[in-house]
Amino acid sequence: MAQLYVMRRWWQSRGISVRSMVNCSLVSKHRVENQVVDGTLQGLHTMTGGEGPHSYAHNSSYQRGVVDVAKPIIEEEITKKLDISQLSSNGLMNSFWIADFGCSTGHNSFLAIQMITRSIQKKIQSERLVSQVPDFYVFFNDQVTNDFNTLFGSLPPKRHYQAIGLPGSYHGRLLPKASLHFAYSSWALQWLSQVPKAVIDPSSTAWNKGRVHYLGARQEVVDAYSSQHAKDVEAFLEARAQELVSGGLMALVIPAATPKSAEDPNTSYTDIQSEMTLIGSCLRDMAKQVSS
Amino acid sequence: MAQLYVMRRWWQSRGISVRSMVNCSLVSKHRVENQVVDGTLQGLHTMTGGEGPHSYAHNSSYQRGVVDVAKPIIEEEITKKLDISQLSSNGLMNSFWIADFGCSTGHNSFLAIQMITRSIQKKIQSERLVSQVPDFYVFFNDQVTNDFNTLFGSLPPKRHYQAIGLPGSYHGRLLPKASLHFAYSSWALQWLSQVPKAVIDPSSTAWNKGRVHYLGARQEVVDAYSSQHAKDVEAFLEARAQELVSGGLMALVIPAATPKSAEDPNTSYTDIQSEMTLIGSCLRDMAKQVSS
Repeated sequence: MAQLYVMRRWWQSRGISVRSMVNCSLVSKHRVENQVVDGTLQGLHTMTGGEGPHSYAHNSSYQRGVVDVAKPIIEEEITKKLDISQLSSNGLMNSFWIADFGCSTGHNSFLAIQMITRSIQKKIQSERLVSQVPDFYVFFNDQVTNDFNTLFGSLPPKRHYQAIGLPGSYHGRLLPKASLHFAYSSWALQWLSQVPKAVIDPSSTAWNKGRVHYLGARQEVVDAYSSQHAKDVEAFLEARAQELVSGGLMALVIPAATPKSAEDPNTSYTDIQSEMTLIGSCLRDMAKQVSS
Repeated sequence: MAQLYVMRRWWQSRGISVRSMVNCSLVSKHRVENQVVDGTLQGLHTMTGGEGPHSYAHNSSYQRGVVDVAKPIIEEEITKKLDISQLSSNGLMNSFWIADFGCSTGHNSFLAIQMITRSIQKKIQSERLVSQVPDFYVFFNDQVTNDFNTLFGSLPPKRHYQAIGLPGSYHGRLLPKASLHFAYSSWALQWLSQVPKAVIDPSSTAWNKGRVHYLGARQEVVDAYSSQHAKDVEAFLEARAQELVSGGLMALVIPAATPKSAEDPNTSYTDIQSEMTLIGSCLRDMAKQVSS
Protein backbone atom coordinates (compact mmCIF):
# COMPACT_ATOMS: atom_id res chain seq x y z
CA MET A 1 0.00 0.00 0.00
CA ALA A 2 2.34 2.66 1.20
CA GLN A 3 5.06 2.03 -1.28
CA LEU A 4 4.89 5.37 -2.97
CA TYR A 5 8.13 7.22 -3.09
CA VAL A 6 9.30 10.53 -4.38
CA MET A 7 10.59 9.27 -7.69
CA ARG A 8 11.61 12.64 -8.98
CA ARG A 9 14.71 12.68 -6.79
CA TRP A 10 15.90 9.28 -7.91
CA TRP A 11 15.37 10.05 -11.55
CA GLN A 12 17.10 13.39 -11.35
CA SER A 13 19.99 11.89 -9.43
CA ARG A 14 20.46 9.57 -12.42
CA GLY A 15 20.58 12.51 -14.83
CA ILE A 16 17.19 11.66 -16.37
CA SER A 17 14.95 14.59 -17.17
CA VAL A 18 11.52 14.33 -15.62
CA ARG A 19 8.40 16.04 -16.85
CA SER A 20 5.79 16.21 -14.13
CA MET A 21 2.31 15.21 -15.11
CA VAL A 22 0.74 14.30 -11.79
CA ASN A 23 1.66 15.08 -8.22
CA CYS A 24 -0.39 12.99 -5.93
CA SER A 25 -0.06 11.07 -2.73
CA LEU A 26 -3.13 8.88 -3.15
CA VAL A 27 -2.70 5.17 -3.50
CA SER A 28 -4.76 2.56 -5.29
CA LYS A 29 -7.12 0.60 -3.11
CA HIS A 30 -6.67 -2.58 -5.02
CA ARG A 31 -3.09 -3.61 -5.29
CA VAL A 32 -0.73 -4.95 -2.69
CA GLU A 33 2.53 -6.52 -3.78
CA ASN A 34 4.27 -8.78 -1.33
CA GLN A 35 2.13 -7.88 1.59
CA VAL A 36 3.57 -8.62 4.99
CA VAL A 37 1.81 -11.23 7.11
CA ASP A 38 3.48 -11.87 10.45
CA GLY A 39 6.77 -10.71 9.07
CA THR A 40 6.83 -13.01 6.05
CA LEU A 41 6.43 -12.19 2.37
CA GLN A 42 3.31 -13.63 0.80
CA GLY A 43 4.12 -13.52 -2.90
CA LEU A 44 2.99 -11.28 -5.71
CA HIS A 45 -0.49 -9.87 -5.96
CA THR A 46 -2.32 -8.33 -8.84
CA MET A 47 -5.31 -6.05 -9.16
CA THR A 48 -8.72 -7.57 -8.51
CA GLY A 49 -9.87 -9.03 -11.84
CA GLY A 50 -13.27 -9.42 -13.45
CA GLU A 51 -16.03 -6.84 -13.81
CA GLY A 52 -17.57 -7.05 -10.33
CA PRO A 53 -18.17 -4.20 -7.85
CA HIS A 54 -14.74 -4.71 -6.24
CA SER A 55 -12.87 -5.16 -9.52
CA TYR A 56 -10.07 -2.88 -10.61
CA ALA A 57 -12.05 -2.28 -13.79
CA HIS A 58 -14.74 -0.53 -11.73
CA ASN A 59 -12.43 1.07 -9.18
CA SER A 60 -9.83 2.79 -11.30
CA SER A 61 -11.49 6.02 -12.30
CA TYR A 62 -8.68 7.96 -10.64
CA GLN A 63 -6.11 6.13 -12.75
CA ARG A 64 -8.29 6.86 -15.78
CA GLY A 65 -8.11 10.54 -14.93
CA VAL A 66 -4.34 10.22 -14.94
CA VAL A 67 -4.46 9.03 -18.56
CA ASP A 68 -6.49 12.12 -19.44
CA VAL A 69 -3.93 14.38 -17.75
CA ALA A 70 -1.02 12.65 -19.46
CA LYS A 71 -2.67 12.57 -22.90
CA PRO A 72 -1.64 16.00 -24.28
CA ILE A 73 1.91 15.58 -22.94
CA ILE A 74 2.39 12.15 -24.55
CA GLU A 75 0.86 13.37 -27.81
CA GLU A 76 3.24 16.32 -27.85
CA GLU A 77 6.26 14.13 -27.12
CA ILE A 78 5.33 11.70 -29.91
CA THR A 79 4.97 14.60 -32.34
CA LYS A 80 8.27 16.15 -31.28
CA LYS A 81 10.48 13.20 -30.53
CA LEU A 82 9.43 10.02 -32.32
CA ASP A 83 12.13 9.61 -34.94
CA ILE A 84 10.35 7.98 -37.88
CA SER A 85 13.33 8.41 -40.20
CA GLN A 86 15.59 6.51 -37.80
CA LEU A 87 13.00 3.77 -37.28
CA SER A 88 12.37 3.35 -41.00
CA SER A 89 16.10 3.37 -41.80
CA ASN A 90 16.39 0.34 -39.53
CA GLY A 91 13.84 -1.43 -41.71
CA LEU A 92 11.50 -1.78 -38.76
CA MET A 93 8.42 -0.16 -40.15
CA ASN A 94 6.44 -3.19 -41.31
CA SER A 95 5.23 -3.63 -37.79
CA PHE A 96 5.20 -1.18 -34.89
CA TRP A 97 5.44 -2.67 -31.41
CA ILE A 98 3.93 -1.00 -28.36
CA ALA A 99 3.91 -2.42 -24.82
CA ASP A 100 1.95 -1.36 -21.73
CA PHE A 101 3.81 -2.57 -18.65
CA GLY A 102 1.44 -3.16 -15.73
CA CYS A 103 -1.81 -2.90 -17.70
CA SER A 104 -4.12 -4.76 -15.27
CA THR A 105 -7.47 -5.60 -16.90
CA GLY A 106 -6.87 -2.99 -19.56
CA HIS A 107 -9.82 -0.63 -19.25
CA ASN A 108 -7.57 2.41 -18.85
CA SER A 109 -4.89 0.88 -21.02
CA PHE A 110 -7.17 0.70 -24.06
CA LEU A 111 -7.77 4.47 -23.88
CA ALA A 112 -4.05 5.14 -23.65
CA ILE A 113 -3.21 2.75 -26.48
CA GLN A 114 -5.83 4.34 -28.71
CA MET A 115 -4.32 7.75 -28.03
CA ILE A 116 -0.77 6.50 -28.61
CA THR A 117 -1.51 4.64 -31.85
CA ARG A 118 -3.48 7.59 -33.25
CA SER A 119 -0.63 9.98 -32.45
CA ILE A 120 1.91 7.67 -34.07
CA GLN A 121 -0.29 7.22 -37.16
CA LYS A 122 -0.63 11.00 -37.46
CA LYS A 123 3.12 11.48 -37.09
CA ILE A 124 3.91 8.82 -39.70
CA GLN A 125 1.37 10.18 -42.17
CA SER A 126 2.55 13.77 -41.73
CA GLU A 127 6.20 12.91 -42.39
CA ARG A 128 5.49 10.70 -45.42
CA LEU A 129 8.73 8.82 -44.88
CA VAL A 130 7.15 5.42 -45.21
CA SER A 131 4.72 4.29 -47.87
CA GLN A 132 2.10 3.08 -45.43
CA VAL A 133 1.25 3.02 -41.75
CA PRO A 134 2.69 -0.18 -40.23
CA ASP A 135 0.66 -2.84 -38.47
CA PHE A 136 0.44 -2.18 -34.73
CA TYR A 137 1.12 -4.95 -32.22
CA VAL A 138 0.29 -4.09 -28.63
CA PHE A 139 1.74 -6.18 -25.80
CA PHE A 140 -0.39 -5.96 -22.66
CA ASN A 141 1.87 -6.87 -19.75
CA ASP A 142 1.16 -7.68 -16.14
CA GLN A 143 1.95 -10.41 -13.60
CA VAL A 144 1.18 -14.02 -14.62
CA THR A 145 -1.75 -13.99 -12.17
CA ASN A 146 -3.33 -10.93 -13.81
CA ASP A 147 -6.86 -11.37 -15.20
CA PHE A 148 -6.01 -11.59 -18.90
CA ASN A 149 -9.40 -13.18 -19.66
CA THR A 150 -11.17 -9.98 -18.66
CA LEU A 151 -8.59 -7.95 -20.57
CA PHE A 152 -9.05 -9.91 -23.81
CA GLY A 153 -12.83 -10.04 -23.34
CA SER A 154 -12.96 -6.23 -23.00
CA LEU A 155 -10.84 -5.35 -26.03
CA PRO A 156 -12.44 -2.62 -28.15
CA PRO A 157 -14.16 -4.43 -31.05
CA LYS A 158 -13.07 -1.78 -33.54
CA ARG A 159 -9.36 -1.47 -33.06
CA HIS A 160 -6.49 -1.22 -35.48
CA TYR A 161 -3.97 -3.31 -33.57
CA GLN A 162 -3.29 -6.93 -32.70
CA ALA A 163 -3.58 -7.40 -28.95
CA ILE A 164 -1.07 -9.73 -27.31
CA GLY A 165 -0.87 -10.84 -23.67
CA LEU A 166 2.59 -10.67 -22.13
CA PRO A 167 2.59 -12.28 -18.68
CA GLY A 168 5.53 -11.73 -16.33
CA SER A 169 7.32 -9.24 -14.13
CA TYR A 170 8.35 -6.02 -15.83
CA HIS A 171 11.42 -5.99 -13.60
CA GLY A 172 13.02 -8.37 -16.07
CA ARG A 173 13.34 -8.84 -19.85
CA LEU A 174 10.10 -9.82 -21.54
CA LEU A 175 10.61 -9.06 -25.24
CA PRO A 176 13.38 -9.66 -27.78
CA LYS A 177 16.32 -7.28 -27.89
CA ALA A 178 15.74 -4.12 -29.95
CA SER A 179 12.14 -5.05 -30.78
CA LEU A 180 10.00 -2.47 -29.00
CA HIS A 181 9.16 0.91 -30.58
CA PHE A 182 7.09 2.44 -27.81
CA ALA A 183 7.14 1.52 -24.11
CA TYR A 184 4.35 2.77 -21.89
CA SER A 185 3.55 2.30 -18.22
CA SER A 186 0.98 4.16 -16.19
CA TRP A 187 0.43 4.08 -12.44
CA ALA A 188 2.34 0.84 -12.03
CA LEU A 189 6.01 1.58 -11.30
CA GLN A 190 5.29 2.69 -7.73
CA TRP A 191 4.68 -0.93 -6.71
CA LEU A 192 7.74 -2.57 -5.27
CA SER A 193 8.86 -6.07 -6.26
CA GLN A 194 9.22 -6.92 -2.57
CA VAL A 195 8.95 -5.43 0.89
CA PRO A 196 12.38 -4.10 1.90
CA LYS A 197 13.83 -6.75 4.18
CA ALA A 198 15.16 -4.27 6.71
CA VAL A 199 11.72 -2.87 7.55
CA ILE A 200 10.45 -6.26 8.70
CA ASP A 201 13.59 -7.19 10.62
CA PRO A 202 13.22 -6.22 14.33
CA SER A 203 17.01 -6.21 14.69
CA SER A 204 17.45 -3.62 11.91
CA THR A 205 17.64 0.12 12.51
CA ALA A 206 15.08 0.40 9.68
CA TRP A 207 12.54 -1.85 11.43
CA ASN A 208 9.09 -0.38 10.79
CA LYS A 209 7.35 -1.87 13.86
CA GLY A 210 4.84 -3.85 11.82
CA ARG A 211 3.52 -0.91 9.83
CA VAL A 212 3.06 -1.31 6.06
CA HIS A 213 4.04 2.25 5.12
CA TYR A 214 6.81 4.73 5.86
CA LEU A 215 4.79 7.86 6.53
CA GLY A 216 6.11 9.63 9.61
CA ALA A 217 8.71 6.90 9.99
CA ARG A 218 12.38 7.40 10.77
CA GLN A 219 14.75 8.26 7.93
CA GLU A 220 16.16 4.70 7.95
CA VAL A 221 12.71 3.32 7.06
CA VAL A 222 12.24 5.85 4.28
CA ASP A 223 15.71 5.03 2.99
CA ALA A 224 14.93 1.30 2.97
CA TYR A 225 11.83 1.88 0.83
CA SER A 226 13.76 4.31 -1.34
CA SER A 227 16.57 1.85 -1.89
CA GLN A 228 14.19 -0.97 -2.91
CA HIS A 229 12.35 1.36 -5.23
CA ALA A 230 15.60 2.50 -6.84
CA LYS A 231 16.59 -1.15 -7.45
CA ASP A 232 13.21 -1.95 -8.95
CA VAL A 233 13.13 1.06 -11.25
CA GLU A 234 16.70 0.37 -12.31
CA ALA A 235 15.76 -3.24 -13.18
CA PHE A 236 12.75 -1.97 -15.14
CA LEU A 237 14.84 0.55 -17.07
CA GLU A 238 17.63 -1.92 -17.80
CA ALA A 239 15.13 -4.39 -19.24
CA ARG A 240 13.45 -1.73 -21.38
CA ALA A 241 16.83 -0.40 -22.53
CA GLN A 242 17.51 -3.79 -24.08
CA GLU A 243 14.04 -4.16 -25.58
CA LEU A 244 13.67 -0.68 -27.09
CA VAL A 245 14.86 -0.04 -30.65
CA SER A 246 17.11 2.87 -31.41
CA GLY A 247 14.85 5.88 -32.02
CA GLY A 248 11.98 4.44 -29.97
CA LEU A 249 10.19 6.25 -27.14
CA MET A 250 9.13 5.50 -23.58
CA ALA A 251 6.33 7.22 -21.64
CA LEU A 252 6.05 6.52 -17.93
CA VAL A 253 3.23 7.95 -15.84
CA ILE A 254 4.28 7.72 -12.21
CA PRO A 255 2.66 8.94 -9.01
CA ALA A 256 4.93 11.25 -7.08
CA ALA A 257 4.60 13.15 -3.83
CA THR A 258 6.81 16.17 -3.47
CA PRO A 259 8.04 16.72 0.11
CA LYS A 260 7.12 20.06 1.62
CA SER A 261 10.72 20.38 2.57
CA ALA A 262 13.43 18.84 0.44
CA GLU A 263 15.44 18.20 3.60
CA ASP A 264 12.70 16.31 5.39
CA PRO A 265 10.79 14.01 3.05
CA ASN A 266 8.45 12.94 5.85
CA THR A 267 6.81 16.31 6.30
CA SER A 268 4.70 16.09 3.17
CA TYR A 269 2.72 13.06 4.17
CA THR A 270 1.42 14.04 7.58
CA ASP A 271 -2.03 14.71 6.16
CA ILE A 272 -2.58 11.08 5.20
CA GLN A 273 -0.37 9.43 7.81
CA SER A 274 -3.15 8.48 10.24
CA GLU A 275 -5.31 7.21 7.39
CA MET A 276 -2.49 5.03 6.11
CA THR A 277 -1.83 3.64 9.59
CA LEU A 278 -5.50 2.70 9.94
CA ILE A 279 -5.62 1.04 6.50
CA GLY A 280 -2.37 -0.78 7.26
CA SER A 281 -3.78 -2.11 10.51
CA CYS A 282 -6.95 -3.33 8.77
CA LEU A 283 -4.92 -5.03 6.05
CA ARG A 284 -2.87 -6.92 8.60
CA ASP A 285 -5.99 -8.04 10.47
CA MET A 286 -7.50 -9.27 7.21
CA ALA A 287 -4.29 -11.10 6.30
CA LYS A 288 -4.24 -12.79 9.71
CA GLN A 289 -7.85 -13.95 9.29
CA VAL A 290 -7.07 -15.42 5.87
CA SER A 291 -3.95 -17.21 7.08
CA SER A 292 -5.43 -18.54 10.35
CA MET B 1 -19.11 -31.85 -33.29
CA ALA B 2 -19.11 -33.76 -36.53
CA GLN B 3 -16.91 -31.43 -38.45
CA LEU B 4 -14.17 -33.88 -39.14
CA TYR B 5 -13.26 -34.27 -42.74
CA VAL B 6 -10.85 -36.36 -44.67
CA MET B 7 -8.17 -33.72 -44.95
CA ARG B 8 -5.71 -35.90 -46.76
CA ARG B 9 -7.60 -35.52 -50.01
CA TRP B 10 -7.74 -31.77 -49.85
CA TRP B 11 -4.08 -31.44 -49.00
CA GLN B 12 -3.00 -33.80 -51.72
CA SER B 13 -5.21 -32.06 -54.24
CA ARG B 14 -3.21 -28.91 -53.45
CA GLY B 15 0.07 -30.69 -54.09
CA ILE B 16 1.04 -30.68 -50.40
CA SER B 17 2.72 -33.81 -49.14
CA VAL B 18 1.03 -35.29 -46.10
CA ARG B 19 2.67 -37.51 -43.57
CA SER B 20 0.07 -39.45 -41.62
CA MET B 21 0.51 -39.50 -37.90
CA VAL B 22 -2.95 -40.32 -36.68
CA ASN B 23 -5.97 -41.87 -38.31
CA CYS B 24 -8.91 -41.47 -36.08
CA SER B 25 -12.58 -40.71 -36.28
CA LEU B 26 -13.08 -39.72 -32.64
CA VAL B 27 -14.03 -36.19 -31.81
CA SER B 28 -13.39 -34.05 -28.73
CA LYS B 29 -16.27 -33.83 -26.28
CA HIS B 30 -15.52 -30.26 -25.39
CA ARG B 31 -15.49 -28.03 -28.40
CA VAL B 32 -18.29 -26.87 -30.60
CA GLU B 33 -17.70 -24.00 -32.96
CA ASN B 34 -20.72 -22.19 -34.28
CA GLN B 35 -23.20 -24.71 -33.07
CA VAL B 36 -26.59 -24.66 -34.73
CA VAL B 37 -29.54 -23.68 -32.57
CA ASP B 38 -32.82 -23.68 -34.46
CA GLY B 39 -31.03 -23.05 -37.68
CA THR B 40 -29.06 -20.02 -36.50
CA LEU B 41 -25.35 -19.67 -35.81
CA GLN B 42 -24.52 -19.04 -32.17
CA GLY B 43 -21.02 -17.62 -32.36
CA LEU B 44 -17.62 -19.05 -31.58
CA HIS B 45 -17.01 -21.42 -28.73
CA THR B 46 -13.84 -22.48 -27.03
CA MET B 47 -12.87 -25.44 -24.90
CA THR B 48 -14.15 -25.53 -21.33
CA GLY B 49 -11.62 -23.57 -19.27
CA GLY B 50 -10.38 -23.91 -15.71
CA GLU B 51 -9.24 -27.02 -13.89
CA GLY B 52 -12.64 -28.50 -12.93
CA PRO B 53 -13.94 -32.01 -13.68
CA HIS B 54 -15.50 -30.86 -16.98
CA SER B 55 -12.51 -28.77 -18.06
CA TYR B 56 -10.59 -29.44 -21.23
CA ALA B 57 -7.48 -29.64 -19.06
CA HIS B 58 -8.90 -32.79 -17.42
CA ASN B 59 -10.60 -34.20 -20.49
CA SER B 60 -7.94 -34.13 -23.14
CA SER B 61 -5.91 -37.24 -22.45
CA TYR B 62 -6.67 -38.46 -25.96
CA GLN B 63 -5.23 -35.29 -27.45
CA ARG B 64 -2.24 -35.72 -25.16
CA GLY B 65 -1.73 -39.17 -26.63
CA VAL B 66 -1.68 -37.56 -30.05
CA VAL B 67 1.27 -35.40 -28.99
CA ASP B 68 3.12 -38.56 -27.94
CA VAL B 69 2.44 -40.18 -31.32
CA ALA B 70 3.53 -37.07 -33.21
CA LYS B 71 6.65 -36.50 -31.10
CA PRO B 72 9.19 -38.70 -32.94
CA ILE B 73 7.93 -37.51 -36.34
CA ILE B 74 8.24 -33.82 -35.43
CA GLU B 75 11.66 -34.38 -33.87
CA GLU B 76 12.83 -36.13 -37.02
CA GLU B 77 11.49 -33.38 -39.26
CA ILE B 78 13.21 -30.67 -37.19
CA THR B 79 16.49 -32.58 -37.39
CA LYS B 80 16.18 -33.13 -41.13
CA LYS B 81 14.52 -29.97 -42.39
CA LEU B 82 15.01 -26.97 -40.10
CA ASP B 83 17.43 -24.83 -42.07
CA ILE B 84 19.55 -23.08 -39.43
CA SER B 85 21.98 -21.67 -41.98
CA GLN B 86 19.14 -19.97 -43.86
CA LEU B 87 17.58 -18.63 -40.66
CA SER B 88 20.89 -17.30 -39.34
CA SER B 89 21.78 -15.74 -42.69
CA ASN B 90 18.59 -13.68 -42.37
CA GLY B 91 19.91 -12.33 -39.08
CA LEU B 92 16.94 -13.82 -37.24
CA MET B 93 18.70 -15.88 -34.66
CA ASN B 94 18.63 -13.54 -31.66
CA SER B 95 15.13 -14.70 -30.96
CA PHE B 96 13.29 -17.78 -32.17
CA TRP B 97 9.52 -17.52 -32.48
CA ILE B 98 7.20 -20.48 -32.09
CA ALA B 99 3.40 -20.39 -32.18
CA ASP B 100 0.82 -22.97 -31.19
CA PHE B 101 -2.42 -22.24 -33.03
CA GLY B 102 -5.46 -23.49 -31.10
CA CYS B 103 -3.65 -24.26 -27.83
CA SER B 104 -6.69 -24.20 -25.47
CA THR B 105 -5.58 -24.13 -21.81
CA GLY B 106 -2.15 -25.36 -22.77
CA HIS B 107 -1.71 -28.58 -20.81
CA ASN B 108 -0.93 -30.58 -23.94
CA SER B 109 0.66 -27.60 -25.62
CA PHE B 110 3.36 -27.28 -22.94
CA LEU B 111 4.49 -30.86 -23.60
CA ALA B 112 4.66 -30.22 -27.33
CA ILE B 113 6.49 -26.91 -26.91
CA GLN B 114 9.04 -28.52 -24.61
CA MET B 115 9.69 -31.21 -27.21
CA ILE B 116 9.90 -28.67 -30.05
CA THR B 117 12.24 -26.26 -28.24
CA ARG B 118 14.52 -29.11 -27.13
CA SER B 119 14.74 -30.47 -30.67
CA ILE B 120 15.54 -27.02 -32.04
CA GLN B 121 18.19 -26.41 -29.36
CA LYS B 122 19.79 -29.77 -30.20
CA LYS B 123 19.75 -28.98 -33.90
CA ILE B 124 21.29 -25.52 -33.39
CA GLN B 125 23.99 -26.84 -31.05
CA SER B 126 24.89 -29.72 -33.36
CA GLU B 127 25.32 -27.46 -36.39
CA ARG B 128 27.34 -24.81 -34.54
CA LEU B 129 26.29 -22.18 -37.07
CA VAL B 130 25.36 -19.63 -34.45
CA SER B 131 27.35 -18.65 -31.38
CA GLN B 132 24.53 -19.30 -28.93
CA VAL B 133 21.03 -20.71 -28.72
CA PRO B 134 18.54 -17.86 -29.30
CA ASP B 135 15.88 -16.79 -26.83
CA PHE B 136 12.61 -18.64 -27.44
CA TYR B 137 9.31 -16.76 -27.60
CA VAL B 138 6.22 -18.96 -27.66
CA PHE B 139 2.91 -17.52 -28.81
CA PHE B 140 -0.04 -19.46 -27.39
CA ASN B 141 -2.99 -18.80 -29.67
CA ASP B 142 -6.68 -19.49 -29.33
CA GLN B 143 -9.98 -17.61 -29.61
CA VAL B 144 -10.34 -14.39 -27.59
CA THR B 145 -12.73 -16.23 -25.23
CA ASN B 146 -10.18 -18.97 -24.48
CA ASP B 147 -9.19 -19.38 -20.81
CA PHE B 148 -5.78 -17.71 -20.95
CA ASN B 149 -5.76 -17.26 -17.16
CA THR B 150 -5.63 -21.03 -16.67
CA LEU B 151 -3.03 -21.28 -19.43
CA PHE B 152 -0.72 -18.69 -17.86
CA GLY B 153 -1.34 -20.08 -14.37
CA SER B 154 -0.33 -23.58 -15.51
CA LEU B 155 2.90 -22.63 -17.28
CA PRO B 156 5.79 -24.92 -16.30
CA PRO B 157 7.79 -23.00 -13.67
CA LYS B 158 11.10 -24.14 -15.11
CA ARG B 159 10.90 -23.26 -18.76
CA HIS B 160 13.36 -21.70 -21.13
CA TYR B 161 10.94 -19.57 -23.15
CA GLN B 162 8.89 -16.43 -22.76
CA ALA B 163 5.21 -17.32 -22.94
CA ILE B 164 2.94 -14.92 -24.82
CA GLY B 165 -0.84 -15.01 -25.23
CA LEU B 166 -2.08 -14.45 -28.76
CA PRO B 167 -5.88 -14.12 -28.80
CA GLY B 168 -7.76 -14.33 -32.08
CA SER B 169 -8.88 -16.58 -34.91
CA TYR B 170 -6.10 -18.49 -36.63
CA HIS B 171 -8.05 -18.15 -39.86
CA GLY B 172 -6.53 -14.70 -40.19
CA ARG B 173 -3.16 -12.98 -39.77
CA LEU B 174 -2.05 -12.72 -36.15
CA LEU B 175 1.69 -12.03 -36.27
CA PRO B 176 3.97 -9.71 -38.26
CA LYS B 177 5.03 -10.72 -41.75
CA ALA B 178 8.04 -13.05 -41.87
CA SER B 179 8.35 -13.24 -38.09
CA LEU B 180 7.52 -16.84 -37.20
CA HIS B 181 10.15 -19.61 -37.24
CA PHE B 182 8.03 -22.58 -36.23
CA ALA B 183 4.26 -22.93 -36.57
CA TYR B 184 2.51 -25.72 -34.72
CA SER B 185 -1.12 -26.76 -34.41
CA SER B 186 -2.45 -29.95 -32.91
CA TRP B 187 -6.00 -31.26 -32.98
CA ALA B 188 -7.45 -27.87 -33.81
CA LEU B 189 -7.73 -27.48 -37.59
CA GLN B 190 -10.69 -29.84 -37.84
CA TRP B 191 -12.94 -27.18 -36.29
CA LEU B 192 -14.76 -25.12 -38.86
CA SER B 193 -15.03 -21.34 -38.65
CA GLN B 194 -18.77 -21.64 -39.31
CA VAL B 195 -21.46 -24.16 -40.08
CA PRO B 196 -21.80 -24.44 -43.88
CA LYS B 197 -24.81 -22.31 -44.77
CA ALA B 198 -26.24 -24.85 -47.20
CA VAL B 199 -26.65 -27.57 -44.57
CA ILE B 200 -28.99 -25.42 -42.47
CA ASP B 201 -30.99 -24.12 -45.41
CA PRO B 202 -34.13 -26.29 -45.97
CA SER B 203 -34.31 -25.07 -49.58
CA SER B 204 -30.79 -26.28 -50.36
CA THR B 205 -30.00 -29.68 -51.85
CA ALA B 206 -27.35 -29.93 -49.10
CA TRP B 207 -29.89 -29.42 -46.29
CA ASN B 208 -28.89 -31.74 -43.44
CA LYS B 209 -32.34 -32.04 -41.83
CA GLY B 210 -31.23 -30.55 -38.54
CA ARG B 211 -28.39 -32.96 -37.92
CA VAL B 212 -25.02 -31.55 -36.75
CA HIS B 213 -22.85 -34.04 -38.64
CA TYR B 214 -22.54 -35.45 -42.13
CA LEU B 215 -22.14 -39.14 -41.36
CA GLY B 216 -24.34 -41.20 -43.66
CA ALA B 217 -25.58 -38.01 -45.29
CA ARG B 218 -25.95 -37.38 -49.00
CA GLN B 219 -22.93 -36.38 -51.03
CA GLU B 220 -24.17 -32.75 -51.19
CA VAL B 221 -23.95 -32.50 -47.39
CA VAL B 222 -20.47 -34.00 -47.30
CA ASP B 223 -19.43 -31.63 -50.07
CA ALA B 224 -20.77 -28.62 -48.15
CA TYR B 225 -18.70 -29.55 -45.09
CA SER B 226 -15.72 -30.30 -47.31
CA SER B 227 -16.00 -26.98 -49.08
CA GLN B 228 -16.15 -25.01 -45.80
CA HIS B 229 -13.21 -26.97 -44.44
CA ALA B 230 -11.19 -26.28 -47.58
CA LYS B 231 -11.88 -22.54 -47.24
CA ASP B 232 -10.88 -22.55 -43.57
CA VAL B 233 -7.68 -24.49 -44.10
CA GLU B 234 -6.79 -22.27 -47.03
CA ALA B 235 -7.31 -19.16 -44.86
CA PHE B 236 -5.14 -20.72 -42.15
CA LEU B 237 -2.36 -21.58 -44.59
CA GLU B 238 -2.46 -18.19 -46.29
CA ALA B 239 -2.09 -16.43 -42.93
CA ARG B 240 0.80 -18.70 -41.87
CA ALA B 241 2.47 -18.30 -45.28
CA GLN B 242 2.74 -14.58 -44.57
CA GLU B 243 3.89 -15.01 -40.99
CA LEU B 244 6.52 -17.71 -41.50
CA VAL B 245 10.10 -16.73 -42.25
CA SER B 246 11.95 -18.26 -45.16
CA GLY B 247 13.47 -21.50 -43.90
CA GLY B 248 10.94 -21.91 -41.09
CA LEU B 249 8.88 -25.03 -40.45
CA MET B 250 5.24 -25.88 -39.79
CA ALA B 251 3.94 -29.00 -38.03
CA LEU B 252 0.20 -29.68 -38.15
CA VAL B 253 -1.36 -32.59 -36.30
CA ILE B 254 -4.78 -33.18 -37.78
CA PRO B 255 -7.39 -35.86 -37.17
CA ALA B 256 -8.27 -37.70 -40.35
CA ALA B 257 -10.64 -40.53 -41.13
CA THR B 258 -9.78 -42.51 -44.22
CA PRO B 259 -12.86 -43.71 -46.12
CA LYS B 260 -13.11 -47.44 -46.59
CA SER B 261 -13.77 -46.73 -50.24
CA ALA B 262 -12.21 -43.74 -51.96
CA GLU B 263 -15.33 -43.48 -54.16
CA ASP B 264 -17.77 -43.38 -51.25
CA PRO B 265 -16.51 -41.24 -48.35
CA ASN B 266 -19.61 -42.08 -46.30
CA THR B 267 -18.85 -45.75 -45.93
CA SER B 268 -16.08 -45.32 -43.43
CA TYR B 269 -18.18 -43.69 -40.76
CA THR B 270 -21.03 -46.12 -40.43
CA ASP B 271 -19.64 -47.51 -37.19
CA ILE B 272 -20.05 -44.20 -35.35
CA GLN B 273 -22.99 -42.82 -37.28
CA SER B 274 -25.72 -43.74 -34.77
CA GLU B 275 -23.56 -42.47 -31.90
CA MET B 276 -23.04 -39.13 -33.63
CA THR B 277 -26.77 -38.80 -34.35
CA LEU B 278 -27.55 -39.40 -30.69
CA ILE B 279 -24.95 -36.87 -29.48
CA GLY B 280 -26.18 -34.36 -32.06
CA SER B 281 -29.76 -34.76 -30.84
CA CYS B 282 -28.68 -34.27 -27.20
CA LEU B 283 -26.70 -31.17 -28.11
CA ARG B 284 -29.66 -29.60 -29.84
CA ASP B 285 -31.93 -30.34 -26.86
CA MET B 286 -29.38 -28.75 -24.53
CA ALA B 287 -29.07 -25.71 -26.78
CA LYS B 288 -32.87 -25.31 -26.83
CA GLN B 289 -33.03 -25.44 -23.03
CA VAL B 290 -30.35 -22.77 -22.74
CA SER B 291 -31.97 -20.48 -25.28
CA SER B 292 -35.57 -20.92 -24.00
